Amino acid sequence: MTASELSAEVRAEIIATATAAAEAAREITLRYFRGAALGTESKKEAGFDPVTVADRSSEQAMRKVIEERRPEDGIIGEEFGPKEGTSGLTWVLDPIDGTRGFISGTPTWGVLIAVRNANTVLYGVIDQPYIGERFVGGLGTATLTGPQRTSILAVRKGVALEEAVIFSTFPEVGSEVEGKAFHDLAARCKLTRYGMDCYAYALLAAGQIDLVVEAGLQSYDILAPIGVIEAAGGIVTDWKGKPVLEGGRVLAAASKELHEAALAVLSTY
Amino acid sequence: MTASELSAEVRAEIIATATAAAEAAREITLRYFRGAALGTESKKEAGFDPVTVADRSSEQAMRKVIEERRPEDGIIGEEFGPKEGTSGLTWVLDPIDGTRGFISGTPTWGVLIAVRNANTVLYGVIDQPYIGERFVGGLGTATLTGPQRTSILAVRKGVALEEAVIFSTFPEVGSEVEGKAFHDLAARCKLTRYGMDCYAYALLAAGQIDLVVEAGLQSYDILAPIGVIEAAGGIVTDWKGKPVLEGGRVLAAASKELHEAALAVLSTY
Repeated sequence: MTASELSAEVRAEIIATATAAAEAAREITLRYFRGAALGTESKKEAGFDPVTVADRSSEQAMRKVIEERRPEDGIIGEEFGPKEGTSGLTWVLDPIDGTRGFISGTPTWGVLIAVRNANTVLYGVIDQPYIGERFVGGLGTATLTGPQRTSILAVRKGVALEEAVIFSTFPEVGSEVEGKAFHDLAARCKLTRYGMDCYAYALLAAGQIDLVVEAGLQSYDILAPIGVIEAAGGIVTDWKGKPVLEGGRVLAAASKELHEAALAVLSTY
Repeated sequence: MTASELSAEVRAEIIATATAAAEAAREITLRYFRGAALGTESKKEAGFDPVTVADRSSEQAMRKVIEERRPEDGIIGEEFGPKEGTSGLTWVLDPIDGTRGFISGTPTWGVLIAVRNANTVLYGVIDQPYIGERFVGGLGTATLTGPQRTSILAVRKGVALEEAVIFSTFPEVGSEVEGKAFHDLAARCKLTRYGMDCYAYALLAAGQIDLVVEAGLQSYDILAPIGVIEAAGGIVTDWKGKPVLEGGRVLAAASKELHEAALAVLSTY
């Protein structure tokens, strides 16, 4: 089923379900973020890992919302086994993308929710619970609801490679050769920044940065960013320019020109 | 004048003045953050640098607040010349710490406000306008006012070096030898994260991370973090264990034990 084949009713249902799932995940992750639920000592004593509990509880809550509202859809999540569906639509969930950031108290981890069919992402949500910021794209929408205002998401165009701002999660991306490829590309850009997890994709969709390059990603890491960025007018592929719905090496670009310029470097590795 | 020599009236005046200055800076920086004030095209056409305008306007607004309320205090800021005072107290301002983050749309830059005498920081404020988060320390307070709740700032104790979370602004800190020193220390810690600017110091004061190491800092970069971290129970010195009020190489640690363990590595460089 393609996006255009979905009835208005189903579209509305998907959007309402994704919103309810994001709200449920927001409430649960905030219970555990920055040790809000338990003191450090009690965590240690119990051999208790708060990010694991937050991750699993958050995914369970999202699954419950989706199973109730869209029982015929499939569900794939980071923490539990896949649920087969019959509708042709599958929800793909990452309850906490950026667990290292979550553990460290930074506000740049996110809850990722995507709805896909066989070949494309129909809808994506990147939610940052602590800031109270939600980036949404697909089914005719491309919106940022944040603490200051609600605005339309749109990538910025017309930025040349040598003027581009490029992000990656780590200084060392994936393998040695992948790291070399990243640094080769980053050296041609104006500004390189690190450590933002899924928030980097959100900033690209919001027209703040121009390129995100990563490697070793899982499907659930990248599907929601694909939904949001494509709705905002950007491009997400692997390092050869092919679809990247199953994860791996990812290149996200704000414009066709930048995508081509970045591919010219990355595809040689 | 030491903190204990200040009258209750003067302490209250300092706190009220710092709050008013932070509010003024918050309003102005948010006008320019993420290109809210002007479209990208008009900025380009005018050769107009929004971060420069935000920086200068924000510092001017803070200076005005301080000059009106505390006319006998000195003022030092990043953007304008120093104002001599007669009270023995000096306000030290960084209107946007982390301009690269500001330019990129990340929510981890900050407005820094410190009040110092000759030898110590009496009061510090790290404000993150977009999130609406303010970390305050000194004159009997150590508080985080954030989007979710208001809480007491306190560093975490009892974390060994091999369990520690360490932050630095860039992968490459300062000179080559400084970078070597940082990586030598980071390799002994559990988790290293990058790219958070002044927000890393705020996370240390909030008990979320254990070490921050940087080099090449200015006085206005580090005074507010010193005020906040010391009030939360942490330690900030240079890489030899000496006071670091004038900037340079900075080591911030959550506990005496971690501070000593980190110094043992850094002081050899």
